[in-house]
Amino acid sequence: MNLNPETRPKSGAFIIVPVPDAPISISRAERENADALLDLISELARFEHLPPPDTAARARLIEDGWGERRRFDAYLAYVPESEAPVGFCLFFETYSTFLARPRLFIEDLYVRPDFRRRGIGTALIKWCIEQAFERGCWRVECMGLDWNKSAQDLYGKMGAHQFFEWFLFRFERRMIEHHVGALPKRRF
Amino acid sequence: MNLNPETRPKSGAFIIVPVPDAPISISRAERENADALLDLISELARFEHLPPPDTAARARLIEDGWGERRRFDAYLAYVPESEAPVGFCLFFETYSTFLARPRLFIEDLYVRPDFRRRGIGTALIKWCIEQAFERGCWRVECMGLDWNKSAQDLYGKMGAHQFFEWFLFRFERRMIEHHVGALPKRRF
Repeated sequence: MNLNPETRPKSGAFIIVPVPDAPISISRAERENADALLDLISELARFEHLPPPDTAARARLIEDGWGERRRFDAYLAYVPESEAPVGFCLFFETYSTFLARPRLFIEDLYVRPDFRRRGIGTALIKWCIEQAFERGCWRVECMGLDWNKSAQDLYGKMGAHQFFEWFLFRFERRMIEHHVGALPKRRF
Repeated sequence: MNLNPETRPKSGAFIIVPVPDAPISISRAERENADALLDLISELARFEHLPPPDTAARARLIEDGWGERRRFDAYLAYVPESEAPVGFCLFFETYSTFLARPRLFIEDLYVRPDFRRRGIGTALIKWCIEQAFERGCWRVECMGLDWNKSAQDLYGKMGAHQFFEWFLFRFERRMIEHHVGALPKRRF
């Protein structure tokens, strides 16, 4: 367990979470390990039965993560026995008008199957919560799929409230284009 | 109907939507009409059975809407017979890692009860969709309450897909503070 401020990296983007026999470290995904992050995003996509990002999408992710306009922050989880990261979280800030405060929205949270049930997911969520606190975000939110019981259990165990009365509505790109084409020809 | 590019305001933040007998105009909420926006946010809060923003929250909303770090964009809907705006939408950009594209998230959409059923909600959603298109957002999303059938009907009629398999999870501020306090005393 490395909690000595002298030996922690100066960036602050590093934490050692005390889990017995399994030290977990979390550090910011930087451009130089973007490939490791993108591989984990691909794994998560397959886990959620969605197609993984193709070559063009991977390039956009790198631009949106480390380009001029950073659209998200991502952190990688490491354990000693694996050189590659074994999990990640990815989030951005949203906003609540009723609180008049920013929120932190966890878009992705994933732990490789072989490394589950040893506290890595918990450590990642704690990391997100700590980030929220430091950024002045008044809530931490995420969406969970109905069949993903292990995620639901974990969020619940950590004190998240599950909302059954709110539904997500989505206009897909095709519908956006349909509506824009249907508008008066002003600038297209 | 004013679609002549010569007479439209140069800012581009203005649209005339052709609704028979009820021209609706939509324009960006600027700092000088922040009070009108905040009043509408308060009305929406009461409509959703939530406490409206207090004085401190109103000040934060103004800072977060028009300060150094703008956290949202808001647009007001007007009709000729009311000097005050009769509805508004408020949104910000989020991100989809699977699409590797930004999304536009509608946090608030509201039409005053006396002005409903004449196309103002539709016009506001169309405006959000057009904004999404122009910003390169690949999706438009929002959350709807289960008892708010008129919103559900409207989103559905306009082509939004309603997701029944995703649930919102939320850590409230109290829980964030609990977790942060429970972490090793590194910097608190």
